[in-house]
Amino acid sequence: MINRLAIIGVGLIGSSLALALKKAKAVEHVVGCGRSQTNLQKGIQLGVIDSYCDSVAEAVKDADVVVIAVPLGTMQSIFEQMSSVISSDTVVTDVGSTKGSVIEAARAGLGRRLNQFVPGHPIAGSEKSGVEAGTAELYQNRKIILTPLQENTQLSIDKISDMWQQCGAHIEYLSVIQHDKVLAATSHLPHLLAFSMVNYLSGLNDHDEIFKYAAGGFRDFTRIASSDSVMWRDVCLANGDALVELIDGYKKELDEVAEAIKHQDAEKLLELFGKAKLERDTLVGNC
Amino acid sequence: MINRLAIIGVGLIGSSLALALKKAKAVEHVVGCGRSQTNLQKGIQLGVIDSYCDSVAEAVKDADVVVIAVPLGTMQSIFEQMSSVISSDTVVTDVGSTKGSVIEAARAGLGRRLNQFVPGHPIAGSEKSGVEAGTAELYQNRKIILTPLQENTQLSIDKISDMWQQCGAHIEYLSVIQHDKVLAATSHLPHLLAFSMVNYLSGLNDHDEIFKYAAGGFRDFTRIASSDSVMWRDVCLANGDALVELIDGYKKELDEVAEAIKHQDAEKLLELFGKAKLERDTLVGNC
Repeated sequence: MINRLAIIGVGLIGSSLALALKKAKAVEHVVGCGRSQTNLQKGIQLGVIDSYCDSVAEAVKDADVVVIAVPLGTMQSIFEQMSSVISSDTVVTDVGSTKGSVIEAARAGLGRRLNQFVPGHPIAGSEKSGVEAGTAELYQNRKIILTPLQENTQLSIDKISDMWQQCGAHIEYLSVIQHDKVLAATSHLPHLLAFSMVNYLSGLNDHDEIFKYAAGGFRDFTRIASSDSVMWRDVCLANGDALVELIDGYKKELDEVAEAIKHQDAEKLLELFGKAKLERDTLVGNC
Repeated sequence: MINRLAIIGVGLIGSSLALALKKAKAVEHVVGCGRSQTNLQKGIQLGVIDSYCDSVAEAVKDADVVVIAVPLGTMQSIFEQMSSVISSDTVVTDVGSTKGSVIEAARAGLGRRLNQFVPGHPIAGSEKSGVEAGTAELYQNRKIILTPLQENTQLSIDKISDMWQQCGAHIEYLSVIQHDKVLAATSHLPHLLAFSMVNYLSGLNDHDEIFKYAAGGFRDFTRIASSDSVMWRDVCLANGDALVELIDGYKKELDEVAEAIKHQDAEKLLELFGKAKLERDTLVGNC
C-alpha cells in the first residue's frame, strides 16, 4: 500500500496510474502537481487526485512514492526541485520514453538522492493527452520496462515494480542502452514517420481533396501523429542519434521499394509485401 | 432490386457487398466466381452467395449487375472472359484501387461492351481478406468513388450508384486522374510505408526484442502491412509513377526532420510535430 503518492505531471500517463491504483485500493492519497491549475482542478473533480500543490517541493514532501510524468526536457528541473526535500524513504520513478537522458538528468539534479530513483517506462499510451484521457485500464496486461541503476536498493526496485503490478502490468528489465535502442525502432521512428506523413500530404497542392478521401487505413496509420508535440520534440532531442540512424536505414528500405516499382519488378514487390505481411501477422498478431 | 448479381472474386470487398445488399433486400440471387472452390463453398455456407460457377462466362450470363473484385493484374483477363457473353442490359463495375489501369484493361478486354462498364472504388476495406472477413456493415457511411466513362449511359451509372447506396454508402464522382492521384497519397503511400517499416525493423539485428516491445501505436501504424500482398503488388504496378514521386517527396520530408534532429533544433521540431497534430486532429478527426 502506498500512503502518499505524488504525481508530477497529471496527464494521460500519471492520471491513468492514479486511477488504476485507486481501483486496486493500493494507494491512500494522491497528490498532483503541474503547471495548469485548470487541469489539476479537473483532476480533483474526476477523482484522479485527492489534492494538489503548486510546488514540486511541497508535493513530494512526505510522499512514499513520487512519479514524474512530464516531458523529457522538464525532467532535470523537477529532479532539482525535489532533491533537498524528499526523505530518505521516498522512492522516485519516471515514465519517460527514453532512459539515457532521464538518468543523466537525475544524476545532475538529484545529487545524493540518486540511489532513490528507479527509472521506468510503461509501454502503454495513446495519442490523447491531459487528465481527462486517463483510464484505470491503461496498464492492464501492458509491459513496464524498468532500467534500475546500480545504486538502487532492491527495496526501491520492488516498491516501483509492485506499484505497476497493482495496475495489472508486467515488469520487464532492460539495460538503458537496449531500452533506448528498442524504443527508437518500435515507437520513436513510427511516430516520426506518422508526423512526417501528415505534414507531407498537407503540403501537397490538393491536400483538402486528399484528406477528404482518407479511410480507415490512413486514420490508423496517422493516429500517433495526433500525439503531444512537446513530448515528441523532447524524445527526438533525447534519442537523436539512434533516430537519425533509423531514418537513414528506413529511407534505404523505401529506395528498395521505389526501385522495384520503377523496374515494374512484380516478383520483388510480392516478396517484399509478403514478407512484411508474414512478419506482422506473426509477431504483432493479426489484430 | 437486382435480380442476379455476379461477384467475380469473393473476398472481403465482394462478400461485404453481397451481405449488405442481402440485408437491404436489394438483391434476389448472388452468384460467385473465383479460383478457390473452398472459398466459394464457404461463401455458400456463410450465406454470402447463393450459388457459384466455375467460369466467369457462366457466372455473368443473365446477371443484371457484375462486380469485379479481383486484384488489378487479373482484371483484363476477367473482362476478356465476359465480353462476348454479357447481355446488352448487364452493367459491369469494379472495386479496383486504381482506375486508370482498370479502364485500360476494360478498353482492351470488353470491346463493344465497354459502354456497360462503370468504374468504381469503395473507400472501405480492412487488412483482412477472404470471404470470412466480409461484413454487411463495411460500406455504412463510407464513400464510393465512381469515375464514369464518357461512353456510359446515365441508366448504367444510376444502377451502380443505387447499388452502393443500398449498402449505406455515399457516392462521389472524380475524374480518373484525380482518383489515382488522391488515392496514391492517402492509401497507396501509407501502405508502402507500413510494409517498409515492418521489413526494415525485421531486418535489424535485435528484431525479436524490438517486436516484443511493440505497443498499440506500432500495432495501428503497421495494421495495413497485414494487407494482401498480391493486391498491393498490383496497385504498385498500376500506379507506379505517382507512387515513386510520392516516395521521393516523402523522403525529403524525412530529411527535414532528420536535419532538425541533427541540429537539435527544438523550435523546428515543435513546429513540425505541432503542425502535423493540428492537421490530423482537424482533418481526420481525433479518433
